[in-house]
Amino acid sequence: MPVNLAPLEADKLLPVQGVTLGIAEAGIKKAGRKDLLVMRLGDHARVAGVFTLNRFCAAPVTLCRQHLAGGKAIRALVVNTGNANAGTGEEGMKRARQTCTEVARLLQCGDDQVLPFSTGVILEPLPVDKIIAGLPAAVANLKEANWFDAAHAIMTTDIQPKALSKQMMLGGKTVTITGIAKGSGMIHPNMATMLGYVATDAAISQPLLDGLVKHAADQSFNCITVDGDTSTNDSFILIASGEAGAAEITDAASAEYATLRDAITEVSQVLAQAIVRDGEGATKFMTIAVEGGASTAECRQVAYAIAHSPLVKTAFFASDPNLGRILAAIGYAGITDLDVDKIRLYLGDVLVAENGGRAASYQEQDGQRIMKAPEITVRVNLGRGDAAATVWTCDFSYDYVKINAEYRS
Amino acid sequence: MPVNLAPLEADKLLPVQGVTLGIAEAGIKKAGRKDLLVMRLGDHARVAGVFTLNRFCAAPVTLCRQHLAGGKAIRALVVNTGNANAGTGEEGMKRARQTCTEVARLLQCGDDQVLPFSTGVILEPLPVDKIIAGLPAAVANLKEANWFDAAHAIMTTDIQPKALSKQMMLGGKTVTITGIAKGSGMIHPNMATMLGYVATDAAISQPLLDGLVKHAADQSFNCITVDGDTSTNDSFILIASGEAGAAEITDAASAEYATLRDAITEVSQVLAQAIVRDGEGATKFMTIAVEGGASTAECRQVAYAIAHSPLVKTAFFASDPNLGRILAAIGYAGITDLDVDKIRLYLGDVLVAENGGRAASYQEQDGQRIMKAPEITVRVNLGRGDAAATVWTCDFSYDYVKINAEYRS
Repeated sequence: MPVNLAPLEADKLLPVQGVTLGIAEAGIKKAGRKDLLVMRLGDHARVAGVFTLNRFCAAPVTLCRQHLAGGKAIRALVVNTGNANAGTGEEGMKRARQTCTEVARLLQCGDDQVLPFSTGVILEPLPVDKIIAGLPAAVANLKEANWFDAAHAIMTTDIQPKALSKQMMLGGKTVTITGIAKGSGMIHPNMATMLGYVATDAAISQPLLDGLVKHAADQSFNCITVDGDTSTNDSFILIASGEAGAAEITDAASAEYATLRDAITEVSQVLAQAIVRDGEGATKFMTIAVEGGASTAECRQVAYAIAHSPLVKTAFFASDPNLGRILAAIGYAGITDLDVDKIRLYLGDVLVAENGGRAASYQEQDGQRIMKAPEITVRVNLGRGDAAATVWTCDFSYDYVKINAEYRS
Repeated sequence: MPVNLAPLEADKLLPVQGVTLGIAEAGIKKAGRKDLLVMRLGDHARVAGVFTLNRFCAAPVTLCRQHLAGGKAIRALVVNTGNANAGTGEEGMKRARQTCTEVARLLQCGDDQVLPFSTGVILEPLPVDKIIAGLPAAVANLKEANWFDAAHAIMTTDIQPKALSKQMMLGGKTVTITGIAKGSGMIHPNMATMLGYVATDAAISQPLLDGLVKHAADQSFNCITVDGDTSTNDSFILIASGEAGAAEITDAASAEYATLRDAITEVSQVLAQAIVRDGEGATKFMTIAVEGGASTAECRQVAYAIAHSPLVKTAFFASDPNLGRILAAIGYAGITDLDVDKIRLYLGDVLVAENGGRAASYQEQDGQRIMKAPEITVRVNLGRGDAAATVWTCDFSYDYVKINAEYRS
């Protein structure tokens, strides 16, 4: 069961002016399941995205990159579940293009104004005929109030849908941000991928939006890990429709930019953390906060070494304050001039290790009390500087093995 | 159960002239268990070693490095199980030194002519009094025929002891190599560590021995992974007693050096593979062979990405030919200019992927047939050059989680 992830309430999701969503059942993998989503964007909308760094990236990811680089205004997004269109070679590119062409025809825009996304089985041909057959129903369904259904339509093995809205005042106008995301492992066996879409009706210049999507991703989706694997299809898209009536933000030093940036980052963080909370087999949500580093990069390196260690993750599953495993992970994280005598390690607020060994004040029962909670913070001070980084992850349970070993059987 | 690891037969282990071994029950963690080993080396013996790169290395590892760097002839090794003497700060160093002092007193050599090794619980004080009390019995037990008992004495959670002997002719003389090793995860929760000791009665100069220990480790213990974690105590020691009567090898270009190097490397490989076969919860033994790389380093990078992926390891546990997971791991291994269209992926002898996707000739039942076997070879040709690297690993089963989650409970 997801860790502290409240059921999604439809009436808490707010429409974003200038963004309509349409859902359909295209029967891509199974019948009777909403598996196709079209998002239509208004005339003033700007779009920016970040994508997987996996060299085996999927055809739709390649096409998204091309269309965004082309500089034409993006007018629609199309997302299918049930098939990732990854590892499908030139034929996969052709089918992703066919999908865009059909969306463009229905919405009367250019092919290169459409961004395609796929998630599902890898290495299987995309059933593009089913998608094309399902598109008219999705387009007929387009409306601003469809975020709740959209959050469901992009799910694969997610146990719960993930979505969030936030409102604030910006230049005297009410501005809305609504986001949805899916994913429960960094990569699923065949139901691949993390997808995130955050839309706002604020107006912002393209260069600032391009920077903002990277900032938000670096503080959210790039700080989570379930199993260390990186999908072929991971995508995070930020949409600014500009229809709230607020003045366009063009200055990165302005208060308005800071407000919007922080709100979008917060929505992205909650969505990213929801993916970890719904991680495959997760029973605990862990925050790994590394501080006192010489650089952010080395803090991330240490945080990921802890977050990726199967030994640490199984100890958390067992609620076992196994300090040796955490110290060992810090030790092999790759900081060659690390002085282990300067490191302080905390579980929650309890100092557990310092001076290269267990803290004199540490009592095993204090560690055990903290490890029994469903949310646990591991804090490491490297004693080398002022940099810090945080990573969120979940534990490693029997169910992780079960889910991933039995997926195709 | 270990994968294809035959029970150790005492009469297949051959004594190495100039190396005697003594075992005792010191009651370090539990009573009634052989947990202390002393190895005494003859007057002509030379020793070389490689150790963990973990910054949280244990006190005995630090002392081993100091004593080897000191340049005095090493005359004894002392190994205890039940306690790793890691994360124990200055007091840990003091206790490791006390152990060396007592061995030196009993064997009448210098403190700095003794190498100490510990494996077991991390962060607990070493019960040095018990070790000192046990040493006279171990010394009284010293004999050349004790390799079988020694292989048992260094075990912690290993299911089976690991040892091997090999003989060959060198310069007209029969030369013997015998090695023992322990370990079943790269690091155990508290019963840490991979330890390997290989001894020969060949004679070889110190510079060549120093090179040989690195060569053998790089081709064996540095090519295995169970869970990607690196212990605080990992050590591999090579001993050449020089007592077989063969002339000293001093030329790295000589046929004698090549013969000895290859034989020691082979013994080290069998021992290293035995650790994987006895890996925590292992049900399959996997060889990940990456070829056609631009460098050995990038081949290792790709091999380890595959070998460390929890998704790949659970698929192997399930005997599922899940090609997408392997391709995804290759894609995120970190080769930024990788051309995925040039990659060929084989399961056993079956070509499963090429041209960026599934091979046209591939039949799922061929993949399944290979995945059902207890030993599986994954072969990747990167299509970039002539370099190659091989890594051995095991699968990821329910029992891995069970062993590591329930260890301290």
